[in-house]
Amino acid sequence: MSQRPLILVCNDDGIFAPGIQALIEVMQELGEVLVVAPDSPQSGMGHAITINSTLRVNRIQNTQGLVKYSCSGTPVDCIKMAVSKLSERPISLVVSGINHGSNSSINVIYSGTMSAAVEGCIEGIPSIGFSLCNYSYDADFESCKPYVKKIAKLVMENGLPEGVCLNVNIPSVHASKIQGVRVCRQAKAYWEEEMDERVDPRGGKYYWLTGVFKNVDDGIDTDEWALANNFISVVPVQIDITAYKAMEELKMWDFSIEN
Amino acid sequence: MSQRPLILVCNDDGIFAPGIQALIEVMQELGEVLVVAPDSPQSGMGHAITINSTLRVNRIQNTQGLVKYSCSGTPVDCIKMAVSKLSERPISLVVSGINHGSNSSINVIYSGTMSAAVEGCIEGIPSIGFSLCNYSYDADFESCKPYVKKIAKLVMENGLPEGVCLNVNIPSVHASKIQGVRVCRQAKAYWEEEMDERVDPRGGKYYWLTGVFKNVDDGIDTDEWALANNFISVVPVQIDITAYKAMEELKMWDFSIEN
Repeated sequence: MSQRPLILVCNDDGIFAPGIQALIEVMQELGEVLVVAPDSPQSGMGHAITINSTLRVNRIQNTQGLVKYSCSGTPVDCIKMAVSKLSERPISLVVSGINHGSNSSINVIYSGTMSAAVEGCIEGIPSIGFSLCNYSYDADFESCKPYVKKIAKLVMENGLPEGVCLNVNIPSVHASKIQGVRVCRQAKAYWEEEMDERVDPRGGKYYWLTGVFKNVDDGIDTDEWALANNFISVVPVQIDITAYKAMEELKMWDFSIEN
Repeated sequence: MSQRPLILVCNDDGIFAPGIQALIEVMQELGEVLVVAPDSPQSGMGHAITINSTLRVNRIQNTQGLVKYSCSGTPVDCIKMAVSKLSERPISLVVSGINHGSNSSINVIYSGTMSAAVEGCIEGIPSIGFSLCNYSYDADFESCKPYVKKIAKLVMENGLPEGVCLNVNIPSVHASKIQGVRVCRQAKAYWEEEMDERVDPRGGKYYWLTGVFKNVDDGIDTDEWALANNFISVVPVQIDITAYKAMEELKMWDFSIEN
């Protein structure tokens, strides 16, 4: 039995995306790899889980040091399936990605890639989500591989604080242009939605959800600043989302219903 | 034109669930109500958005002071649709629920109900998610109505800190048993998954995702403690999920790739 650490690889672009292939290649240098990833694209699925329908799993590869399963569910389902059903020994690291497109700033909340990492963290496993700031299917994942390896290695060596995982975003530039790695906070931003209204052949209206990303944070300690300046951003993300500072203010409120 | 505040009501159990009906009734006492809610149950959808397929909207009611739309998307889609397309004036308050079942502790991350509130918060609108700790379709929503009204009224009067919304959970007990309201932190907990394996008529395996909720937090300042002791729990939730404390530790790491 292999004593190499077991690394679980997931993503949200689907098991056949080039980004996950790049991540698998890097992780094979660091351990034994188990891939459990969606059988179709699941971008924007956030932390969705499948409870109103059923899940299917297919083993699609099983060679020395690489076992691959596709799953009909969301990225979070994949992590739950891997942990509870498919892994034969404890998982040392969960990595998700490499996402085709940025998951910086508020996108962390919508991202299926990051939700897989968050789920790994909830399960008590050191977890990292990787995203390349390039939405193209043919994006170049080679330039970032040394950094992906380095960050994964650091997490395997040092662990992560309890309840914390990493959101790593990588600028889409040639390796020679990457300025290094910066530990950042999530920039304050939002999407200004646009509903692209269309008419189907039977005259019914339907909509495509689209929008424009608005960064409203000019801090130089943010992930958006780092990426704009060709740094790789590393944002530690926590699963306890209590707004502790707000608790004191709320405790002053009179909630009694006897008016 | 009405000068009453405009209140957007959403949920994740679907527009025909009794819980949203109770919430609509309470909100009609506080303002003009716009309902935009999923046309089918969307429990466990987390912060999913619909980007790989299209959205449909149907206006199903339009009477004095109450306009209802059903939407084919997720709870978060509903909020985006309401804000960008369906509301004719600024929304003063977003309320989501009343959920059939608890969204306390780590469930906040999986919950479509809470994700609707989080999305309202991202949009800059004071937002609250309400959940009753009773999964039954026929749950009694009457007992909690005075508290739902009081909490919504307090939020309308005082506002909420920027980037913060409320996760309100209500014990499923008679009004006379409710001990009051407690401002809490999110308890540390997780789900121990079980994949319920079955075989379809053609011999193929499939799974139902199920599990057991494990509270591993014995703090008396948590939502789990409050609910177990018949208090309504109010957890302020933040959309900046940066683990600030972890940043200092991570900044000590040597990320350079020149080994």
